[in-house]
Order: sequence, then C-alpha cells, then structure tokens
Amino acid sequence: MSTYTAINLIARPGSNPIGPDLFEVVSKEIPQAGAGEILIRQTHMSLDPAMIGWMSPDTESYIPPVELGAVMRSSGLGEVVESNHPDFSVGDRVMGMFGWQEYALSNGQGVNKIDASLPADMVLSVFALPGLTATQGLLEIGKPKAGETLIVTGAAGSVGSIVGQLAKAEGLRVVGVAGGKEKCDWLVNELGFDAAIDYKAGNLEQRLAEETPNGIDLFFENTGGEIQSLIFERMNAHGRIVVCGLIADYTASKPAPGPSWMNLIKKRLTIQGYTMPDHLHKTPQLLEKLTPYVQAGKIKYRAHELEGLESAMEGLNYFLTGENKGKLLVKL
Amino acid sequence: MSTYTAINLIARPGSNPIGPDLFEVVSKEIPQAGAGEILIRQTHMSLDPAMIGWMSPDTESYIPPVELGAVMRSSGLGEVVESNHPDFSVGDRVMGMFGWQEYALSNGQGVNKIDASLPADMVLSVFALPGLTATQGLLEIGKPKAGETLIVTGAAGSVGSIVGQLAKAEGLRVVGVAGGKEKCDWLVNELGFDAAIDYKAGNLEQRLAEETPNGIDLFFENTGGEIQSLIFERMNAHGRIVVCGLIADYTASKPAPGPSWMNLIKKRLTIQGYTMPDHLHKTPQLLEKLTPYVQAGKIKYRAHELEGLESAMEGLNYFLTGENKGKLLVKL
Repeated sequence: MSTYTAINLIARPGSNPIGPDLFEVVSKEIPQAGAGEILIRQTHMSLDPAMIGWMSPDTESYIPPVELGAVMRSSGLGEVVESNHPDFSVGDRVMGMFGWQEYALSNGQGVNKIDASLPADMVLSVFALPGLTATQGLLEIGKPKAGETLIVTGAAGSVGSIVGQLAKAEGLRVVGVAGGKEKCDWLVNELGFDAAIDYKAGNLEQRLAEETPNGIDLFFENTGGEIQSLIFERMNAHGRIVVCGLIADYTASKPAPGPSWMNLIKKRLTIQGYTMPDHLHKTPQLLEKLTPYVQAGKIKYRAHELEGLESAMEGLNYFLTGENKGKLLVKL
Repeated sequence: MSTYTAINLIARPGSNPIGPDLFEVVSKEIPQAGAGEILIRQTHMSLDPAMIGWMSPDTESYIPPVELGAVMRSSGLGEVVESNHPDFSVGDRVMGMFGWQEYALSNGQGVNKIDASLPADMVLSVFALPGLTATQGLLEIGKPKAGETLIVTGAAGSVGSIVGQLAKAEGLRVVGVAGGKEKCDWLVNELGFDAAIDYKAGNLEQRLAEETPNGIDLFFENTGGEIQSLIFERMNAHGRIVVCGLIADYTASKPAPGPSWMNLIKKRLTIQGYTMPDHLHKTPQLLEKLTPYVQAGKIKYRAHELEGLESAMEGLNYFLTGENKGKLLVKL
C-alpha cells in the first residue's frame, strides 16, 4: 500500500504570517479511480496571488474560501495514471484544480488535456491562468488602442508581464511598475517595455510624470499600494482601469482606502474589476486570441521553479515580499 | 439707452464660502444682434450642482473653469427678441447656455427651440440637463434590469428624483438617499420610491441593510459622503456604479478618499463616471427615450423657484446645505 503527501490549510492568514504555521503536511493512501473517475499524478503546481485570497475567511467573495482542514486549493499539471473515464487515457497530460497534493482523483470536470510537447513551465506561465487572465483583462475589458499609454503594476509578475507584452504588440506605449532594479531591467531589456518604474525606489510622482508624458489611458492594476492614487491622478479623459489584483491588501485586516471618485467624473473614467472564474467558459476563445502572439515570439516568460510539494508553503509568501522572479511554480 | 444686469464670477470657492462675495453685479448696455446673431431675453435660469465645479480653478476637468471676471456660466430659458439668424424668429422660446444675465447674444450654436406650451419649470426640471443626465446615466450606462435593486443618492435632487422614477418604471426596487424627513416622505409618498434613507438621521449601515435585503445591483451616485463606502460594501456580484456627482466633495480642498478597490475584484463591479457635455450630441435620442415616461405620467417633479437674478448667488449654496426642495431655478 503506497502513500502520498498532501497539505491541508489549518489556519487563516492575517494575524498569522503566511508560511508553514498555516498548514499541516499529511500522508494519505493513494486511492483507486472509481467508476467514471481518473487518478492524476501531479507533476507541477501553479502558485498564484489569488490563492492568498482563497485562504481568507471571506464568504462574500467570488469563490468560497478553502475550508480549514481541507487540501489547499491550486491549479496544476499532471499525468493520468488510472482512468475509468471515456475522455481520458493513461498517460494523458492534464491541467486542473488538483490542490496541494501529489495525487488527485477527479470525475474529469474542469480537467483539460494539454499538448505534451509544450514545456511545463510554458504551459503554467502562459497558457494557464496567467495568460487567460491577461488576455481577458487587457483585450476583452481594457480594449487597448494603438498609440495609447498603458501602465501595469506587478509588471514582472505572471499576469503583468503578459499584459505588457500584449499591449506592446498592440502598439501601445507600455510602462511597467515593479519592485527592484533587476525586475525593472528585465521588463525593459528582455520584454521590450518602453519604461519601468521601481516602486521601491521612491520619487514615484516624478517618475510617473517622466515616463507617461501624455498621461495614462489604460491602467492595469495588480497590486494596489501607494502608487495607485498617483496613477489614478494621471489618467486621461475616457481612461479605463482594469482591476485584476491588489496584492498589497490581501493580508491587510483593513485594506487601504482607494482614491476619491472625483477624478472618475472629471475624466469620465471606467473602473472594472474581474476574476477569471467568471470567464473560464471562454477559455478556447481566449487561447485563440493569445496563441498567435506566442507563436509570433511576442510573449516571453520566465518561471521561478520551487522544488517539492512542501516548498509551496513558503513560496506563497513571495507574492507579498516580491521575491518571486517570474511565474511561481512548484515541481513535484 | 437701456441697460441690463449681469453677474460676473470674481473669486474661487474653497476658502471663500459660496455666496455674494464670489461675484460682482454689473450693469451693461443691452446690445444689438449683429449679422447671424440673435438677442435673447432670459426668463428662467437653471441652477445645477455642476456649476460649483465650473467655478473651481481646475483646468484638468471636463469643461474649462469659468474665468474670473467673466459672466457666470449657466443654462436657461428665454425668448428671442431680435434675430438676424435664419433659424430663429422673434418670439421663439429657446434654451441655451445664457449665463447669469438678463440678456444674451448668440450665434445660435447650442441654442435649441422649445415648445412654448410646456411650463417653464417642467422644461428646466425634466427636459433639460436633469432629465438628459438621468436618462444617459441610468438607461445608457447603468443598464437597469427589472427585479434589481437600485440605490440613488441625492435622490430628492433634480437628477436623482428622475433616476429613481425611471428605475421604478423599469421594474426595479428603488431606494433613495436624501437629507431630512420631508424629502424622504416626498420620495416615498409622491414619487413612489420603495424606500428612502435619511442620511442625516444616522444608523446608516442598519438602515441600508433593512432597505436592501437582497443587496444592491445598481448604485447611482450624486453626493459622496459617509454612505458611499457603506453602499459600496453592499454591492452584489456584477453590480454597476454610475458616478454622476459628488456634491459633498465639490468645495473640499482635498476630497475624501474612496473605498478600497478590493470589493471591485470580489464582486466584479464596474464603476463609470460621466458628464453630460460628452453626450449632448445624443440629446434627440435621449429625449426620445425619456418623453414616453413623462407622457405616461411616470415622472413627477417639483421646482424650487427663486426670484430675481441676484438670488442665484445664494441659491448655489443650497446644494451644499441641502436647502433646495426640488429643481432649483431662478425666475428673472
């Protein structure tokens, strides 16, 4: 009888810092696939900023919180090792919400087959949640127009880096906000952003003025923080703001206030928040939009790979410290 | 040689309270209409909350500020008394941006003829800026659906009262926020709102919970103030917020902050600000939408009529104190 390892959430973040104290590592017996089921051996897990929100006890949010005592929720990539399901065969490579565990049972719902020739880090960095989120937010909601100026926060993150590159391919001036010189250099030198602003280097109001001389038409928000209101004040008439994430506030007991709505009237702005669960039914259409940019070499990515299931517990905290360099994933 | 009276803006609000100190009353010679011009004798002036914004020195707003020393900007109703313009005849009743003065010269641009059979207070209360603003904001931007819950602030004001009645006619649950028992009673007993909340009576969080048991789908914002963030927290998933005015902040040197954007993500909300100058070219289509409701007796109004040009200087302040009962206008 073989066993596998799983990690359960046992406490909420907030007063507790994000790390091993919130979790318990358990050993379980590897189950057998029942009628209509598949058994998946997970090979790679995705770590995403949204997971910090899923750990909070807020029952009013777009997705129910992970229950205490349950396996931590996450998406990942794996291989079918047993199948009693007509649509899946042993050996298929699949993606789905498999959670923090080495093996997962599924009835196939929400599980998608993935071309085995694509590198795992490319699948999780581009064709999974980050790419879908960037495509939906920028192209479907933000509606970028050539010649406009886009600013994206969390620009070196998994979503932000794709947003900026898509916008660049669409002919916009693209300014990224990221933490630290290394990330800023990567945005400009490797990804082709027009400029990058290091939010940790201060002088933000002047830096923004320098890098957005024609104001800002499109603001893609991933982080919150001090720069939010400064960007808001530089929005042009009829500007659009797409709110994808607010990582700076995910663990705050009381999130920081937002900017006054006065500028919404003066500049006739639109602000729209979204989350991907509302749009996952459009995955094929979103991939159809995204794929040509990837094939044309317009979308570069870098993965920050952690080793072993248990590394996930510390890894989540990288979103708060900014330690992650590119798309965070865990190799099992 | 006859003269007429005009009122110029000579100081900005802010440190100065809104009142006669910001203006000078001048006497001018009545001009003659030149080639292609008309001379209008103004009979009624409209006072609107937006005028307070036009007095501020903010050159970044949707419309340039009124220059110091210039006639105060306003819309009004009048009669053509001289015409050298092919489209206008002496005796025509017209509406336009005539300013705070008894006579105005115009080349006809932006001047519209008005059916002489309609009462003046109905024209200014319903078929002018208030009705256009309500129709654009609620029907075009808010996209109300029967069965939803709408909350409108400044509900007893010229725009808010029409927004609520249009939404009621569209089959929504309509809750108005207004200051004082008299206004709240008027909303419920005369205009047919489902409920009204007196923002001066306190207990706002509980009152909101009582009157919006199914949450809020559509928030039409005219005022700002303490209740804004409480309403924001009660928004339902996919709710829409239409920002038309923020009267509580128009004279603040630093407007109050807005709510955190966290709820925008959790509830996937859209917030949109708008001002009518962007939409005035659609006036015929907006009137086509609005008029059937008026003809069906669905839109009641009340005008608060001040007497004489000089009353406008004190009248503007009523928007800040809430003293106005219905659409403010000045009879010349």
